[in-house]
Amino acid sequence: MRMRHKKYLEQRLEACDSVNLGWLADYAAEKRGEFQKRTLDVKEIFGNENPVHLEVGCGKGAFAVEIAKRNPEINYIAVEMARNVIVSAMELTIKENVPNLKFLMGKAEYLEKFFPENSVERIYLNFSCPYPKESYKKHRLTHKVFLDIYKKILIPGGEIHQKTDNRKFFEFSIESLSENGFILRNISLDLHNSDFEGNIVTEYEKRFSDMGMPIYRLEAVNLLK
Amino acid sequence: MRMRHKKYLEQRLEACDSVNLGWLADYAAEKRGEFQKRTLDVKEIFGNENPVHLEVGCGKGAFAVEIAKRNPEINYIAVEMARNVIVSAMELTIKENVPNLKFLMGKAEYLEKFFPENSVERIYLNFSCPYPKESYKKHRLTHKVFLDIYKKILIPGGEIHQKTDNRKFFEFSIESLSENGFILRNISLDLHNSDFEGNIVTEYEKRFSDMGMPIYRLEAVNLLK
Repeated sequence: MRMRHKKYLEQRLEACDSVNLGWLADYAAEKRGEFQKRTLDVKEIFGNENPVHLEVGCGKGAFAVEIAKRNPEINYIAVEMARNVIVSAMELTIKENVPNLKFLMGKAEYLEKFFPENSVERIYLNFSCPYPKESYKKHRLTHKVFLDIYKKILIPGGEIHQKTDNRKFFEFSIESLSENGFILRNISLDLHNSDFEGNIVTEYEKRFSDMGMPIYRLEAVNLLK
Repeated sequence: MRMRHKKYLEQRLEACDSVNLGWLADYAAEKRGEFQKRTLDVKEIFGNENPVHLEVGCGKGAFAVEIAKRNPEINYIAVEMARNVIVSAMELTIKENVPNLKFLMGKAEYLEKFFPENSVERIYLNFSCPYPKESYKKHRLTHKVFLDIYKKILIPGGEIHQKTDNRKFFEFSIESLSENGFILRNISLDLHNSDFEGNIVTEYEKRFSDMGMPIYRLEAVNLLK
């Protein structure tokens, strides 16, 4: 069964070739100590020089597809490490015909090996895994480990936009961003009861909000570069 | 009636002479253009060289009295502009016999004219008025107007500790502190359901918490001085 499922996934991925930029890194090659740095040529990929916005951890792509449709003058690249999840995002993008959205498979750790320095205008982190255990905090996408990577690829004045339903992860994020030289702005501690306009509510976000849980949101600016 | 009440207040204030450092500023003199800068001599006031912690807006003094009792090795100065309120704080301090707590009457705007530069180790802002109207935001005790004053009187590495039940005020505070060079840490978006130990719960705080409202808390470090 497992093999059949895997084969089916490969077929689905192949069918999404037009929006799939491939692996962020060749893990097998890296394991052999043969990692090759790839450098993204956005101009070639999108055929224009529009600004690049990333979503790190795009899941099934509902947010990425919607924001890309709303902003055709921005190039979006959505990253997700789970292949069986990102394939749905790719299929949705093809179905909705969104020319300014492409996908990369892989872990955020490899972003700096793929994106040139000062090449990204904005990074979205939507409902990333909070890794609540203290011993796993290095995996949180707002840990210094990742902020150092974002700082490299973000332009000066580039931004991180984060949403989460997890209070402790949001507290951690504020502290980590502040400590690592980002300036915080447009904080919302209850997004669905705030003045913020244009929020894209995904199914996941709606589920938590409907349960009465506040949605937290922040913007962090990379000013100190 | 009003005169009698006022006279009674004067008598009560006179009885608190031992803990009352007087007016932060002589408003009448300032109105006449005769403001005289006073410089606080903490060593003389407390008879020691212990670190100084301020509470700005101490109300009836429940927090100040309790924290001063818990930390006899710190000198506390509590500031409040409402004389009919601060008098209760002074009376409580005398009743509880707290030698390391003194009071200043007046507005926070005048702190820099009273405290020497680099003389304060920590500032507490507990449930300060949120001034919700946009047109009053300059009165919020975490507005740049006040942060610039705190930065002058705080030592490098000095801290601001803030608690509030007002979400929008807290959002504003995070943004303002971040934008003005403070590093945020130990954020709590629901203090009474957090790991924070040693919280001093005043009656006001308890009332809001009992209503199911989260209490917000932050620490901000004056690192960039």
